[in-house]
Amino acid sequence: MGTITFAQYGLVYNALSFTIAVMFAATVFSFLARSQVAPAYRTAMTITGIVTLIAGYHYVRIFNSWESAFIVEGDVIRLSNIAFNDAYRYVDWLLTVPLLLVELILVMRLSRAETVSKSVRLGLLAALMVILGYPGEIAIDHGTRWLFFGLSMVPFTFIVIELFFGLRRSIASQPVEARGLINGACWLTIASWSFYPVVVVFPMLGIDGGTANTAVQIGYTIADIVAKAVLGVLIYMIAVRKSEADGYYADTAVPATSRA
Amino acid sequence: MGTITFAQYGLVYNALSFTIAVMFAATVFSFLARSQVAPAYRTAMTITGIVTLIAGYHYVRIFNSWESAFIVEGDVIRLSNIAFNDAYRYVDWLLTVPLLLVELILVMRLSRAETVSKSVRLGLLAALMVILGYPGEIAIDHGTRWLFFGLSMVPFTFIVIELFFGLRRSIASQPVEARGLINGACWLTIASWSFYPVVVVFPMLGIDGGTANTAVQIGYTIADIVAKAVLGVLIYMIAVRKSEADGYYADTAVPATSRA
Repeated sequence: MGTITFAQYGLVYNALSFTIAVMFAATVFSFLARSQVAPAYRTAMTITGIVTLIAGYHYVRIFNSWESAFIVEGDVIRLSNIAFNDAYRYVDWLLTVPLLLVELILVMRLSRAETVSKSVRLGLLAALMVILGYPGEIAIDHGTRWLFFGLSMVPFTFIVIELFFGLRRSIASQPVEARGLINGACWLTIASWSFYPVVVVFPMLGIDGGTANTAVQIGYTIADIVAKAVLGVLIYMIAVRKSEADGYYADTAVPATSRA
Repeated sequence: MGTITFAQYGLVYNALSFTIAVMFAATVFSFLARSQVAPAYRTAMTITGIVTLIAGYHYVRIFNSWESAFIVEGDVIRLSNIAFNDAYRYVDWLLTVPLLLVELILVMRLSRAETVSKSVRLGLLAALMVILGYPGEIAIDHGTRWLFFGLSMVPFTFIVIELFFGLRRSIASQPVEARGLINGACWLTIASWSFYPVVVVFPMLGIDGGTANTAVQIGYTIADIVAKAVLGVLIYMIAVRKSEADGYYADTAVPATSRA
């Protein structure tokens, strides 16, 4: 980790604190909103809240690790002798990335057999992607970084194909009023996940230490907020629309029968 | 940050601690009161509680930052070499100010299309206002402060116009017993938000360092309590009146039919 300026240190510091607030707020939202969707979609809401809860925990750890990796004296920043722990992000993703796919599968409400097979297949691919990405992240020489970057792109590509042609094909069986949102959720997942490999290559593009490091931290943070908290709101909206399509109106005092 | 007196240090210190208590108390109130309003208003109560939860988290951070920015020896206050982190307030507002507008829109219970379009438009304007305000807050020269003050007043003006002529126009479609309160909530929002730009200009009015700094901290704190916790109580009262107007009586053992 190279030396950074006071402004770069502060930017990452404040972005990490912001993300702690976002993740715990999203968690509370998912757990409270859970009772407002039909029982069939409550597991999706539970998983959504658990993803942001796990991320919130890791952002507390990342924040503390960032704080103790530097010594701040006035507006001068020096490295302390405690290294910033890069592994927290990968430990987080190892848990949350498979769960993000599971929440997407659960809110589609496919058959039980499909739900289990898709969850296991996509979940294992996602875990493999994260495990293969880590040696690239911590490698110093660019050769090793590119090697593991390439390797982790293999499961990533399979997941994208599955999201595009597998999950999105199931959209035809979804209620009309939820299709746009489900399509949006698949696209948001692909777009936000594409951010991670882009962030990994920052240091290989010749951007210098401190700036590259700041760009990596801010990039991962934005990608995490979009992939977890923003996706969570979409999952909730999908669950509400599908609940209504099923004749379940939680957000009204009028019974479903009299609205049909 | 200039030197301050022991009395000024203590005043801000105690005001920050007071606000931590207020924000977490308001959070618990909103989450518990949520079950006493009709399901249609529960998301408004959820967002209300999340706003004060996020603010409570940031006030803990602000309190700790304030404490570590000074060295107290008896009744002598010296600056430590750790700068007070002004950014926490802006990071907080970036999240809470858009959400405050969303809770106001949700409790009005407009059509789904109107709810989404108003939330997105007002939410983005609010985020823009906060982002444009920050460079003014941290600038040292008065020219830059006035410039960004002026820039952030542009989205602020649009929000005020929308609250006055957009949201308040919808009041005609609200139940009679809730109209006064909704009008009050719009006015409270405008009044408490007007406080922030006033606070920003304190240092430009020639008030000296320590006094200006204390005035800024106390001013922001009062504005936050009114805009978040007091507004939250109003949102709850509106939700209760509207629930009753819908025939939903949670706060009584008497069934709705016998009260109609």
